[in-house]
Amino acid sequence: MNDVYALGIDFGTNSVRALVLNLTNGEEISSSVSNYKNGNSGILLDENNPLVARQYPGDYLESMEIAVKAAVTEAIGKNISIDEIVGIGVDTTGSTPIPVDEDLVPLALKDEFKNNLNAQAWLWKDHSSIEESEKITELSAEIRPEYIAKCGGAYSSEWFFSKILHCYNVDRTVFDAAFTWLECSDYIPAAIAGITNISDLKRNVCAAGHKAMYSKEWGGYPDEEFLGKLAPEFVELRKTLSDQAYTINETMGTLSLEWAEKFGLKAGTPIAVGALDAHIGAIGSGVGEGVLVKIIGTSTCDIMASPKDKEIKNIPGVAGVVDGSVLPGYIGIEAGQSAVGDIFNWFVSNVLNRDGDYHNVLTEKAEKLKAGQSGLLALDWNNGNRNVLADFNLTGLILGQTLHTKDYEIYRALVEATAFGALMIIERMEEYGIKIDKLVNCGGIAEKNPMVMQIYADILGRPMEVAASGQTVAMGAAIIGGFVAKKGEDGFENIEAIQSRVCEVKETNYTPNDKEHETYAQIYKLYKILHDAFGVKGYSESLFEVMKKLIEIKRTLN
Amino acid sequence: MNDVYALGIDFGTNSVRALVLNLTNGEEISSSVSNYKNGNSGILLDENNPLVARQYPGDYLESMEIAVKAAVTEAIGKNISIDEIVGIGVDTTGSTPIPVDEDLVPLALKDEFKNNLNAQAWLWKDHSSIEESEKITELSAEIRPEYIAKCGGAYSSEWFFSKILHCYNVDRTVFDAAFTWLECSDYIPAAIAGITNISDLKRNVCAAGHKAMYSKEWGGYPDEEFLGKLAPEFVELRKTLSDQAYTINETMGTLSLEWAEKFGLKAGTPIAVGALDAHIGAIGSGVGEGVLVKIIGTSTCDIMASPKDKEIKNIPGVAGVVDGSVLPGYIGIEAGQSAVGDIFNWFVSNVLNRDGDYHNVLTEKAEKLKAGQSGLLALDWNNGNRNVLADFNLTGLILGQTLHTKDYEIYRALVEATAFGALMIIERMEEYGIKIDKLVNCGGIAEKNPMVMQIYADILGRPMEVAASGQTVAMGAAIIGGFVAKKGEDGFENIEAIQSRVCEVKETNYTPNDKEHETYAQIYKLYKILHDAFGVKGYSESLFEVMKKLIEIKRTLN
Repeated sequence: MNDVYALGIDFGTNSVRALVLNLTNGEEISSSVSNYKNGNSGILLDENNPLVARQYPGDYLESMEIAVKAAVTEAIGKNISIDEIVGIGVDTTGSTPIPVDEDLVPLALKDEFKNNLNAQAWLWKDHSSIEESEKITELSAEIRPEYIAKCGGAYSSEWFFSKILHCYNVDRTVFDAAFTWLECSDYIPAAIAGITNISDLKRNVCAAGHKAMYSKEWGGYPDEEFLGKLAPEFVELRKTLSDQAYTINETMGTLSLEWAEKFGLKAGTPIAVGALDAHIGAIGSGVGEGVLVKIIGTSTCDIMASPKDKEIKNIPGVAGVVDGSVLPGYIGIEAGQSAVGDIFNWFVSNVLNRDGDYHNVLTEKAEKLKAGQSGLLALDWNNGNRNVLADFNLTGLILGQTLHTKDYEIYRALVEATAFGALMIIERMEEYGIKIDKLVNCGGIAEKNPMVMQIYADILGRPMEVAASGQTVAMGAAIIGGFVAKKGEDGFENIEAIQSRVCEVKETNYTPNDKEHETYAQIYKLYKILHDAFGVKGYSESLFEVMKKLIEIKRTLN
Repeated sequence: MNDVYALGIDFGTNSVRALVLNLTNGEEISSSVSNYKNGNSGILLDENNPLVARQYPGDYLESMEIAVKAAVTEAIGKNISIDEIVGIGVDTTGSTPIPVDEDLVPLALKDEFKNNLNAQAWLWKDHSSIEESEKITELSAEIRPEYIAKCGGAYSSEWFFSKILHCYNVDRTVFDAAFTWLECSDYIPAAIAGITNISDLKRNVCAAGHKAMYSKEWGGYPDEEFLGKLAPEFVELRKTLSDQAYTINETMGTLSLEWAEKFGLKAGTPIAVGALDAHIGAIGSGVGEGVLVKIIGTSTCDIMASPKDKEIKNIPGVAGVVDGSVLPGYIGIEAGQSAVGDIFNWFVSNVLNRDGDYHNVLTEKAEKLKAGQSGLLALDWNNGNRNVLADFNLTGLILGQTLHTKDYEIYRALVEATAFGALMIIERMEEYGIKIDKLVNCGGIAEKNPMVMQIYADILGRPMEVAASGQTVAMGAAIIGGFVAKKGEDGFENIEAIQSRVCEVKETNYTPNDKEHETYAQIYKLYKILHDAFGVKGYSESLFEVMKKLIEIKRTLN
């Protein structure tokens, strides 16, 4: 088999990464990262509203050009010909909708809208649309319960229609000027393919299904009657949303002459349909039947692909179940925790008032503790609970403190809380028939924090494997780029065929310690009591034993 | 009325204070403090057992001599004659039992026991006797429920018989060598009166009633059958415990020649029966009908004197109800919280790893917050709950944290938690018929921390007055010393007559803000739900609304 290369372009929250990958053996030939230029680490903020988080679409284009050019130049320097770089894949954050004109050009690229925050890309973590999300959830519960059943029971303020409706409510000029709205993961591949007509656009099912209530079960996006009840003008918007969304094994188009010159690649190179970064990261980490990929960073994303014969339509409390959103031909499942590393960072920076290095100080002491030794138990809800409660009107909790409790004990309890939260999600998936044989982890925490990973192994009671590559998302993008170029050829029968050559885990994984797991199993029972007591309406079991049992577990250790 | 002076000697945990007080007008003539010499700030520790806290009785005598001599010398320098110093009162910590020989000399003063920790004074905060306290509680529940009903439902590891039984269990040599055990508050006045015969000793009802289950209702101390079931040798011990205990309006004896010389006072000066520091502090703060005195420091003590016609026998969950333990002729009530300032210190030193000055940094920001603004709610149980749950198998809790929660918000939530805990005690007292018209506060926090006091006023919904003197305990001791000397004379009809001349509150008190009180009343309801959910067996109300209601209260403020 001859060497085949592809380009992956991965748009993160603060920067874009380009990677040239050898699809024959997984060798990472060259990569480059370019930070977005404007705003605070690339994010445009509103002084008067801390919930606002936007991005200038021009930054995407400029940084992409810099990163791709650098990666391609480096690859060429390693004697790779541009003829051998056969395809391009793109992933981005999401839901990050961008208002565009009839030519699919972002309004923000025009002088009149350049300085209007509402005309920019509405970054995934923009939370200004809480009221709109509640309205959408209510309307759906009332007249289209199937819509929200598929996304875990509630429509998020982070998602497509919440954001567009908020724009409608606060800035009618921008709303009216927009011909339609594109997910960033559709806009970028369309832009570099030179697509300027909505009829040529292939919106991706990953963003459409997980963020915009798209499903074949009801003929695509929500219907006009439903959208029209949110705002009459949404009936027109609906007409610009296709009835068909596409999986990543489809081709969005081919590289335009303009972008071929900017990248230093061949015009006409196929470009895959886009997808969200977490899902593409899962591809790069080897997601497949029985393999749960956990992307653990400031928050956590859990991605699974389940065979269709299982007939999994909904998993209550799990954010999304979307046909084809991960691997084509499989049911894609996306769940997650709304804050993980963010909770550890909160404790260090907001409570202890220390800088990032203090994580190491705390970790050094915390990793010496045994399960149950601190006597502490926490709930990981400082940023609400995405799964399995799908409730953001929740807050953090910690109990078990004595007059001797130390900072590093609290730190460890917070780590443990996120692991207990992770276990709740896994148990819920299994309860609904998803088979999980293997856990592959990636993301900053999986790569850099052995204590956290060992605690996860001990609490989950399963080995925690870690993806070998530090850039699994860009790898996933390169995989889909290469696939659409070589689809059907030997070794390119399906995406899994490429994964089997390219995706590896590190040799050393984290294995659960039986004794620790046994103790954590007792504490997890208490976690579930707290979880349900504060999170589930109508729960009325006694909490009297919670503190006493923690004291008893601690005493038993001594 | 001619000026009359008395000497108060107040034994604290780390030092002794002597005060010469003018009983005619409350003028504090002279005072002096002397730290105990041995151990860690006067406390003898056991490297192998963090629960041990003992004191060398010789330190009491030596420091007392230094402090009294200095105060008396200073008073004489102000032209006060020693003839005018008419009486002496003594208070000490407790329960602080000391094993003594037949001449009432502490075993620790003999060479053979000097270095034996078990032969020392067992300081109030020694917690080595937990198992023994549980045994006593169980036995009492089984055969003498009336004993523990009077002390809140559980016999503490800090108390008289727990400690003696622990000594019996771990060091039979000391136990056997002891003729009897004296509370420190009996030992000191007896020592300076030169009492060497048990038949001349007047044990005080304050320590006997609150710490040793003494009550006239059952003929004094627990009976021989009960004590004999703890250990057969306790039957002999019982014979050394008088059937009669005495109130502070009685005279223990008069100053011996030896101690008169050491003090520079007249031999024959009357010495009042002793009492515990909190109760004597309450006397110095003006305790009386309708006046609750709160001594707020590392922990909090609540002292009341209730008229006998109320027939208050027990208040469930309130530590002690003892006839005459505060003011003679009244029912003395002692309640408290096992950690208050200790919780604030814990947060600053163990969690934040900062020094004492950091309290000011946190206070400066925390005092700007409004009720409900942090969205946090805590339970003040880091050192268990003395009242109203009388359960030390409980721990701290804090909830309501977001990713934005700051250190000073947590600090304030901890302060609020102690105030909610204080309100629980007040409500329990009122529920059992105690009338509280006025709150007078003393102790380090009452004197030095306006933020804490204002929060208490806002949460309790009552003005918080602060005792004018910074040494109310020594004042109380001087009051009882003067009273026994002049009992029955004009202006000395009873202790209250002296209090009315001597005890004053500061001009500025802390007045509740209506709006803050209203918000806190909502949060207090949530505190009670948490309190009962974790603290009361069989409680099964839903906690689902707790976090949501806190979020709602916070949002309403904005």
